[in-house]
Amino acid sequence: MTPLKLGMVGGGQGAFIGGVHRMAARLDGCYQLVAGSFASDPLRAHAFAGELGVDKDRSYDDYTQMAKMESARPDGIDVVSIVTPNHLHGPIAEAFLAENIHVICDKPMTATLAQAKSLVAAAAVSKASLFVTHNYTGYPMIRQAQQMVTEGVLGDIQIVEANYLQDWLSKAPNPDNKQAAWRNDPYQSGGGAIGDIGTHAYNLVGFVTGLRTRTLNATLHTHVKGRLVDDDARINLHFDGGARGHIWVSQVAIGNANNLTLAIYGTKGSIRWSQEDPNKLWYTKLGEPPVMYTRGGGFAYAAAATVTRIPAGHPEGYLEAFATLYKEVAQVIIASETTHPNTVIGIEQGFDGVRFVDACQRSSKAGAAWVEL
Amino acid sequence: MTPLKLGMVGGGQGAFIGGVHRMAARLDGCYQLVAGSFASDPLRAHAFAGELGVDKDRSYDDYTQMAKMESARPDGIDVVSIVTPNHLHGPIAEAFLAENIHVICDKPMTATLAQAKSLVAAAAVSKASLFVTHNYTGYPMIRQAQQMVTEGVLGDIQIVEANYLQDWLSKAPNPDNKQAAWRNDPYQSGGGAIGDIGTHAYNLVGFVTGLRTRTLNATLHTHVKGRLVDDDARINLHFDGGARGHIWVSQVAIGNANNLTLAIYGTKGSIRWSQEDPNKLWYTKLGEPPVMYTRGGGFAYAAAATVTRIPAGHPEGYLEAFATLYKEVAQVIIASETTHPNTVIGIEQGFDGVRFVDACQRSSKAGAAWVEL
Amino acid sequence: MTPLKLGMVGGGQGAFIGGVHRMAARLDGCYQLVAGSFASDPLRAHAFAGELGVDKDRSYDDYTQMAKMESARPDGIDVVSIVTPNHLHGPIAEAFLAENIHVICDKPMTATLAQAKSLVAAAAVSKASLFVTHNYTGYPMIRQAQQMVTEGVLGDIQIVEANYLQDWLSKAPNPDNKQAAWRNDPYQSGGGAIGDIGTHAYNLVGFVTGLRTRTLNATLHTHVKGRLVDDDARINLHFDGGARGHIWVSQVAIGNANNLTLAIYGTKGSIRWSQEDPNKLWYTKLGEPPVMYTRGGGFAYAAAATVTRIPAGHPEGYLEAFATLYKEVAQVIIASETTHPNTVIGIEQGFDGVRFVDACQRSSKAGAAWVEL
Amino acid sequence: MTPLKLGMVGGGQGAFIGGVHRMAARLDGCYQLVAGSFASDPLRAHAFAGELGVDKDRSYDDYTQMAKMESARPDGIDVVSIVTPNHLHGPIAEAFLAENIHVICDKPMTATLAQAKSLVAAAAVSKASLFVTHNYTGYPMIRQAQQMVTEGVLGDIQIVEANYLQDWLSKAPNPDNKQAAWRNDPYQSGGGAIGDIGTHAYNLVGFVTGLRTRTLNATLHTHVKGRLVDDDARINLHFDGGARGHIWVSQVAIGNANNLTLAIYGTKGSIRWSQEDPNKLWYTKLGEPPVMYTRGGGFAYAAAATVTRIPAGHPEGYLEAFATLYKEVAQVIIASETTHPNTVIGIEQGFDGVRFVDACQRSSKAGAAWVEL
Repeated sequence: MTPLKLGMVGGGQGAFIGGVHRMAARLDGCYQLVAGSFASDPLRAHAFAGELGVDKDRSYDDYTQMAKMESARPDGIDVVSIVTPNHLHGPIAEAFLAENIHVICDKPMTATLAQAKSLVAAAAVSKASLFVTHNYTGYPMIRQAQQMVTEGVLGDIQIVEANYLQDWLSKAPNPDNKQAAWRNDPYQSGGGAIGDIGTHAYNLVGFVTGLRTRTLNATLHTHVKGRLVDDDARINLHFDGGARGHIWVSQVAIGNANNLTLAIYGTKGSIRWSQEDPNKLWYTKLGEPPVMYTRGGGFAYAAAATVTRIPAGHPEGYLEAFATLYKEVAQVIIASETTHPNTVIGIEQGFDGVRFVDACQRSSKAGAAWVEL
Repeated sequence: MTPLKLGMVGGGQGAFIGGVHRMAARLDGCYQLVAGSFASDPLRAHAFAGELGVDKDRSYDDYTQMAKMESARPDGIDVVSIVTPNHLHGPIAEAFLAENIHVICDKPMTATLAQAKSLVAAAAVSKASLFVTHNYTGYPMIRQAQQMVTEGVLGDIQIVEANYLQDWLSKAPNPDNKQAAWRNDPYQSGGGAIGDIGTHAYNLVGFVTGLRTRTLNATLHTHVKGRLVDDDARINLHFDGGARGHIWVSQVAIGNANNLTLAIYGTKGSIRWSQEDPNKLWYTKLGEPPVMYTRGGGFAYAAAATVTRIPAGHPEGYLEAFATLYKEVAQVIIASETTHPNTVIGIEQGFDGVRFVDACQRSSKAGAAWVEL
Repeated sequence: MTPLKLGMVGGGQGAFIGGVHRMAARLDGCYQLVAGSFASDPLRAHAFAGELGVDKDRSYDDYTQMAKMESARPDGIDVVSIVTPNHLHGPIAEAFLAENIHVICDKPMTATLAQAKSLVAAAAVSKASLFVTHNYTGYPMIRQAQQMVTEGVLGDIQIVEANYLQDWLSKAPNPDNKQAAWRNDPYQSGGGAIGDIGTHAYNLVGFVTGLRTRTLNATLHTHVKGRLVDDDARINLHFDGGARGHIWVSQVAIGNANNLTLAIYGTKGSIRWSQEDPNKLWYTKLGEPPVMYTRGGGFAYAAAATVTRIPAGHPEGYLEAFATLYKEVAQVIIASETTHPNTVIGIEQGFDGVRFVDACQRSSKAGAAWVEL
Repeated sequence: MTPLKLGMVGGGQGAFIGGVHRMAARLDGCYQLVAGSFASDPLRAHAFAGELGVDKDRSYDDYTQMAKMESARPDGIDVVSIVTPNHLHGPIAEAFLAENIHVICDKPMTATLAQAKSLVAAAAVSKASLFVTHNYTGYPMIRQAQQMVTEGVLGDIQIVEANYLQDWLSKAPNPDNKQAAWRNDPYQSGGGAIGDIGTHAYNLVGFVTGLRTRTLNATLHTHVKGRLVDDDARINLHFDGGARGHIWVSQVAIGNANNLTLAIYGTKGSIRWSQEDPNKLWYTKLGEPPVMYTRGGGFAYAAAATVTRIPAGHPEGYLEAFATLYKEVAQVIIASETTHPNTVIGIEQGFDGVRFVDACQRSSKAGAAWVEL
């Protein structure tokens, strides 16, 4: 297929997630990066654009200019990736949606619920779509987990447990660490661990189980002195239908790099998955010994096989899962350019994530009171 | 040393924990089983006593008779093990303490807080001591964990996470399963998962960290229809000094046999331990790669080495940990027969466990309200 | 049942394996230690006997005296455990067999093939039996492995791989380490790693697969300067029927404590087991995902369940497996005191182990030539 | 940087390794695929070229035509990837080297030693270079392993163990499986497991340890009836300097997907690595507990950090390691187009791999005799 023409806002030199988006876009050959506004400082932005092979005249000083000019070009970008700090997601996305350019936006969709509502309204009148990179849904074994739930392999779900533990913020914030600095500014981030990784955990729970959270109670806590946002959170979820869930996120849990785990217990069986060992999915049927499914292998479920690139035993990782989302977004865009397809990483999921953060913050302020989403 | 003369109440044919206590008592040669009241039905009791090599005249019809007659014998038992359903622990223990016979009691110490208070009062006027088999404290790597905390290796503790997951009660109670039947009777058990395994998790947290729980909130839930007690519980703990803890216990988590895990996160490092793989203790110092301590190996801490029987790589298990408690009780008894030594598994810990169950039940009934212990 | 009266030769203070035999004998209550010749120095021997609760008049200066006097007593020992250095196994065993006292002998059965032949001859004219503690056969999952092979679950066996890696001899021999010192004396040990742990690996292969080694080639090597025996060995096995096997043993493989592993590959499936994680058995059926059997759990095979003491998730270890052999020996002795039962750890297996060591040494001297056993 | 212009021979629809090479070439943006001869059937080749976005006039009927015409174009390819069955590697590589076009060739470099010698001679008179994709050397933790050896962290190496186990050929060859079919033809493949995966294992051993094999003995075996090449092989290696190595490769070991493992034991410490869990490297210093290094994490060695794309805990896999080789080849080509740089995956390593296969086959035919390389 002809690669889509991709632009990017943010993701300059040294940024983590910008590079990830670019590799994800390249891996399957579905995109070609042709334009960008890579940094707030135009000089640095243009230098970096050169390194990336982006033409000078498509390296922009700011996103407003970029949206307008790309929209005006006959060979303008099809889609833009937004990889800035959280508080800019909304305004930038609105600028491109206004020009009917598709948007791929990193999570959380916005820093505040007000921004999220504004963005949803903007999307409603755009001919373009918005996608949020809840990238952990791209793992093959997560797809298999979803299929197993849907097919009833686990029976009725009773308990869902998601933990997302990191340790890179175990010490007091270092102002020189740009990644850490904007996350520690409530205005820019909208929240701490709850926004940065809590949204991933919450999204994954919903994606795999299909369960809808009715009420939750949450305790957000800041362990490290001098930090202005939460770095650890406990959330109990009550789902429609009676199942119970629990999410624990922490960025001060020493010894955990990016330890996202998911366990689902039903009346007939259970599954367990760990992001740091993503090619395996443990399944136990009640009364039988545990089985270790692997991606590939002939016996993987169709949902896993579909998004698998290489045979079992050849580990795929984080970038492959991320690339799967990029590929699926490309397929959606190519198939129906002017409609709002309901993809798994659409604006609805993005909005739900921001609403989750908001609910957690409300509950925590009220002493872990039960609140509705 | 000369073995202590041991009696047993409960633990007849087919019982699980009675056999465990007998093996634990035998392993290190510190006890000789010489008397017992092994079952409520005298005929079965006497038949089983014969199988165990207990003399006919020391196989008793009931524990009241046993306490009196053993007390009257010049060669009477030094100590009795109580391995009955929970609601009998208190009355039986009081009977033997009244005769100044030491008591080793399975957990929880009693089925109700009232029974626990009565027992504490009885112990206060006895010349004998009571010990509660919170047996997971006997594992060498748990001893090392405690030493590491005490020596400040982890810095200030911030987060404690204990999970105790089983699946043997995933289905509706089978009345033919005696183990399951009395546990499902609130009068006999005093609680479900919270009493049966929650007390273990709570005790282990306190044993390793030395932290004292100030307040807690708890949600006890019953997933299986027809069950009269809880089978799943979530408890948040606030410790003196500000650290946070969380305990999750479940007996309906399919795929978990006896999966008790403990993780402790401090400002300088963390440790993780799993009862199903008990000879390892993971330690991560902030900024360094994880280290896998093993029991033995020359590099184990003194607290682990002291309770280790065989070299590293030769796995010790559940029975060895249990036997360590029996050995330590024997040492305490022999060293100071008439005092109330403050052992790690003394009446104080037993009482704290019952108080914990009571607090969880109060909190849960009040909608997960915060309560004091 | 009435415990058997047990004697012991060797196993004094500080010895490793003597303590193991005593704990194994105690765990299930099948034995009572009543006599011994625990050390070559009578003073130390008698002092230690006292600690073990053995009567003064049954603590002997040497094994010859012990065999004669115990045989003469009406309450003499039923069976003696030999836990001395290897070169003494044969003479001591012959002394007790001559008095028709059963013998439990540590492995290897003797230090030399000549000693082994002499012992077999002695056993042939005794009313008593000899048992060799190839203790790894006592693990429940090893019993299940054997049953799975026997029932054809794996199809025709094609490949067998056994590794037994340790690191406690990674440095030059320390003359103060008694355990290491006699093992480094070819006269006392009869060989290095090949005898000390190679016999275990070889025995386990035969026990589980039932395959009989026809020819082998071996390379014995000494990595550490100053060592007089091998510390690392590679052996290729050709079994009757065409299957291939490979054994690697090393005592200089840093990072391995007691890492004995076994993998069996057949035409229909495979199994894998590790002694350091002994409660699991991995099974893969061709074309299906791997399954993790655990001891207990309801789904374990009968052969495992039979030798299991406590439920799944409550780990059993090295001592339990060792105790299983002691229990089975007791059952054999009690069932048929005057016959030579063909147990799995009988003299035949002991002899086969010594023959294996001899064949490996012959092959290695001949440049890894193929030799018959 | 400006992407290199890449061509490809082989790798048509459904081929495994061709797709891998294309993804590896794309991931870091160093290449653009512009030409190819993707299949022996021109119709299929051209159709597939279209799918890949290759211009019609650069989709060739055969490699001879392609080499000539690309060489003649001013915008001709800089480098060609050869992903055909083994017996074609040599002729194709020679055709492009004759036109001074760089070659990236899958392993083994050729099917026979004669082909390898011819190719080395051809390369010697070309201005272009040849690279062989021994892709497992691209893993970050393998790079760290090499650095640890070089820096003497392990002391003097004593033992090297590499296992490469698969099970996809456990059943009799299915003629419809193209992947399996040509591998089973000795003319096309040059060997079975020994060539397909043995060369990887052998290369990895040399790459990490720097040790040079002096002599080896090998047993190649065919377990599956009807197979014309080996499916299982055991090789003992004697290295210069006295260290010992062992390689076991099998394609009939049920339960192993692509289980390549490497363990290196020195006088001071050891390391262990597994390709199916590639982001970890276990290191044990003599007398200390094992340490689990991970890619990234701040504490990884420089050699690992250099080839790492994303932070610790975000798993990288097979494609990332493969892409690292492609990136390094691009760097070499760009830096010094007309020289023969001595890269780690150069023609020397490719030749050594073919020589290894040849030596194993000679040794095995001679009854596992010791042979020189």
